[in-house]
Amino acid sequence: MLETLKQQVYEANMELPRRNLVTYTWGNVSGIDREKGLFVIKPSGVDYDKLKPEDLVVVDMEGNQVEGEFRPSSDTPTHLELYKAFPEIGGIVHTHSSWATAWAQAGRSIPCYGTTQADYFYGDIPCARGLTPEEIQEEYEKNTGLVIIETFKGLNPIHVPGVLCTNHGPFSWGKDPAGAVYNAVVLEEVAKIAYHTEKLKKDVTEIPKELLDKHFLRKHGKNAYYGQK
Amino acid sequence: MLETLKQQVYEANMELPRRNLVTYTWGNVSGIDREKGLFVIKPSGVDYDKLKPEDLVVVDMEGNQVEGEFRPSSDTPTHLELYKAFPEIGGIVHTHSSWATAWAQAGRSIPCYGTTQADYFYGDIPCARGLTPEEIQEEYEKNTGLVIIETFKGLNPIHVPGVLCTNHGPFSWGKDPAGAVYNAVVLEEVAKIAYHTEKLKKDVTEIPKELLDKHFLRKHGKNAYYGQK
Amino acid sequence: MLETLKQQVYEANMELPRRNLVTYTWGNVSGIDREKGLFVIKPSGVDYDKLKPEDLVVVDMEGNQVEGEFRPSSDTPTHLELYKAFPEIGGIVHTHSSWATAWAQAGRSIPCYGTTQADYFYGDIPCARGLTPEEIQEEYEKNTGLVIIETFKGLNPIHVPGVLCTNHGPFSWGKDPAGAVYNAVVLEEVAKIAYHTEKLKKDVTEIPKELLDKHFLRKHGKNAYYGQK
Amino acid sequence: MLETLKQQVYEANMELPRRNLVTYTWGNVSGIDREKGLFVIKPSGVDYDKLKPEDLVVVDMEGNQVEGEFRPSSDTPTHLELYKAFPEIGGIVHTHSSWATAWAQAGRSIPCYGTTQADYFYGDIPCARGLTPEEIQEEYEKNTGLVIIETFKGLNPIHVPGVLCTNHGPFSWGKDPAGAVYNAVVLEEVAKIAYHTEKLKKDVTEIPKELLDKHFLRKHGKNAYYGQK
Repeated sequence: MLETLKQQVYEANMELPRRNLVTYTWGNVSGIDREKGLFVIKPSGVDYDKLKPEDLVVVDMEGNQVEGEFRPSSDTPTHLELYKAFPEIGGIVHTHSSWATAWAQAGRSIPCYGTTQADYFYGDIPCARGLTPEEIQEEYEKNTGLVIIETFKGLNPIHVPGVLCTNHGPFSWGKDPAGAVYNAVVLEEVAKIAYHTEKLKKDVTEIPKELLDKHFLRKHGKNAYYGQK
Repeated sequence: MLETLKQQVYEANMELPRRNLVTYTWGNVSGIDREKGLFVIKPSGVDYDKLKPEDLVVVDMEGNQVEGEFRPSSDTPTHLELYKAFPEIGGIVHTHSSWATAWAQAGRSIPCYGTTQADYFYGDIPCARGLTPEEIQEEYEKNTGLVIIETFKGLNPIHVPGVLCTNHGPFSWGKDPAGAVYNAVVLEEVAKIAYHTEKLKKDVTEIPKELLDKHFLRKHGKNAYYGQK
Repeated sequence: MLETLKQQVYEANMELPRRNLVTYTWGNVSGIDREKGLFVIKPSGVDYDKLKPEDLVVVDMEGNQVEGEFRPSSDTPTHLELYKAFPEIGGIVHTHSSWATAWAQAGRSIPCYGTTQADYFYGDIPCARGLTPEEIQEEYEKNTGLVIIETFKGLNPIHVPGVLCTNHGPFSWGKDPAGAVYNAVVLEEVAKIAYHTEKLKKDVTEIPKELLDKHFLRKHGKNAYYGQK
Repeated sequence: MLETLKQQVYEANMELPRRNLVTYTWGNVSGIDREKGLFVIKPSGVDYDKLKPEDLVVVDMEGNQVEGEFRPSSDTPTHLELYKAFPEIGGIVHTHSSWATAWAQAGRSIPCYGTTQADYFYGDIPCARGLTPEEIQEEYEKNTGLVIIETFKGLNPIHVPGVLCTNHGPFSWGKDPAGAVYNAVVLEEVAKIAYHTEKLKKDVTEIPKELLDKHFLRKHGKNAYYGQK
């Protein structure tokens, strides 16, 4: 079932340790088949160097495990909520990558200080509010997804393909699993550069709106001219 | 003697340079056989790239060397005290890993700022008080162990599987040697993230109690649901 | 056409990921044949691990694509302006390398704090002013070049072989493509060291003029005595 | 001539890039044969990946080149002065390693904050004063050595096997070339940890004298008990 998607999700998962985004099992990637209404996700707590494509778990849009010997990632309900709320996305990544997690632990959105961020994020990378004690105690992972969705009211998740969860770490997404990992790499890199930018200048200002538009739109708008046709 | 344990302790030692936790010989791992009342530890000052399983030293619970051509790690009396005081643990690691050592040199416990730490440490990672001049001059390595034990009065060493020694560096432990190394890796990673967290926000607050409970207990409590059964 | 130059530009491009100066496709190198009035540049958005010498694009001094199946780097007009204004240079590099980009995002020139920088840069590494909204909206990439040229009024681009673009990142150059990459590596390394220097001492002072002269001129002046004849 | 020493100096030089202490050619190692009154040093500006043992240069105690096709390191007069003033040392290393260079650029000695440093340096790692304009203009490299020697008045260079040169970078030494590189690695590592220590606590205090003594002397004193006999 879903062999092509499994292979894509497997390869996207394996990219996480290669890109130094995960220590041990601290991350997971999923990918969705919108037509079938099923998504494929990493099994919980399985080592990357032992992971095989057939170990991946298939889950339906009610959160039921449809296939797979292993239990799915404990973060599966978060992925499910995001797939339901953001119909444009095809893959989701969660990591505890070091720099992004520092911003999340500080409870701060990452301001857009330059074109490196503007090339992929159309402005700040928001930090979702912390969960209430009730939201943590009942259906914690589902509520993590709902708070992210709340954060994106008025935001286009394709224009801002990632978020920080307070006291926790980053989630990112993309049109497919590989694209979601790409955005996780960008998020970690810009988190690092933004940290050092702030230390180099007090009251540093964000990127001017014209430059943000220029860089985001030369890559993503309908008149994009970066890359090959 | 203890061939299986020696192999485990050997592999755990070799994981230290692979995980970038040691420079040269600055670290050691031991593992204990509780039934026989013997533990196996790295020989003192032997290079990791020359270390062989048969070079490991066997020590009894009075600190006597029972087997091995080499002298045991100079930190052996510290390991011995911890094994005597913490009957739940099966392996111990000492390193001078860079970020954890910085916190130790600052004499500060690592506050729990997020779920990355909460997944493995049920709260702060404590910094033991510095030793008195007398404690340093006589039986320094034994007293290092006793001061750690003093720090853990009222703490469960399985819930807080590591400590910082003031002006020195980290010790960590686990149910077996591999688990102790795993916790050394976690400790180093959270030390790095906590450092940057504090620089990103003045007066940053620690993780809420509910989130600490949620993450620690979904991995370690009797109702744990992370990972495979 | 220009097979030797293409090979040089190809190898210089491939050095960027090896030296950890680029993530994904975030960088490009070009090289010029002054006699023929043509330069060779990386195609836009092509992965480094798929890039082949024959993929490189040949552009003339009016910016017309003369050869190549792919579109040239979107930064081609910036390279063109620099080649026209700085006749001494033979290769140009643009990256988003992490430390240099942090300085660029802070809008700060890198002061010369030591001999590591003085060996290659005869003083500060300047930060060009930000572009006006008009300069961004029309011919952005060309104007990026013009603002760099404006910054170098009174400066010798061979003595100061690199620049930071506000809210963007570094450009560097050299006598040939390999030399331009060399200077990109130096720029990134001194950006990192200068950052930490400032954090170690408030109001740290720049290198004394005599030491700057000594180091720059023992490598680059007519009486240079570093290296082999 | 001096084939064994050349091999040692060659291997010590090659360890510098493996330990990430040098970028390009920014470092050199020498070793001395005290009986013959000759030392062997890296040629100036030769790439590490092209260096061969036979490329090394032999220099006598008046600074004359005795053997070798290449010119010796431009820092040769510094090495010569140190060999003359410190008869106990057998090898010298100079690098621009990143963290040590940051302290040097800040003009600050590295305080001894913990046992990692105390295991090899019996106290602070001193920063030599900057050279006067006259000392820079005439015989700069020789004067660099003389200022280091001035810094070590009353200090035992075997107990403090390294130094920082203001606005420049570190020198270290040891009983042989390999030992000198070892101390260069230690210096870089403790420079990094000390930097972060200061950022974690204002007015952090240095290591207590008793702990400094304990760690340095358990490795280096006549009653040393670290390592194998």
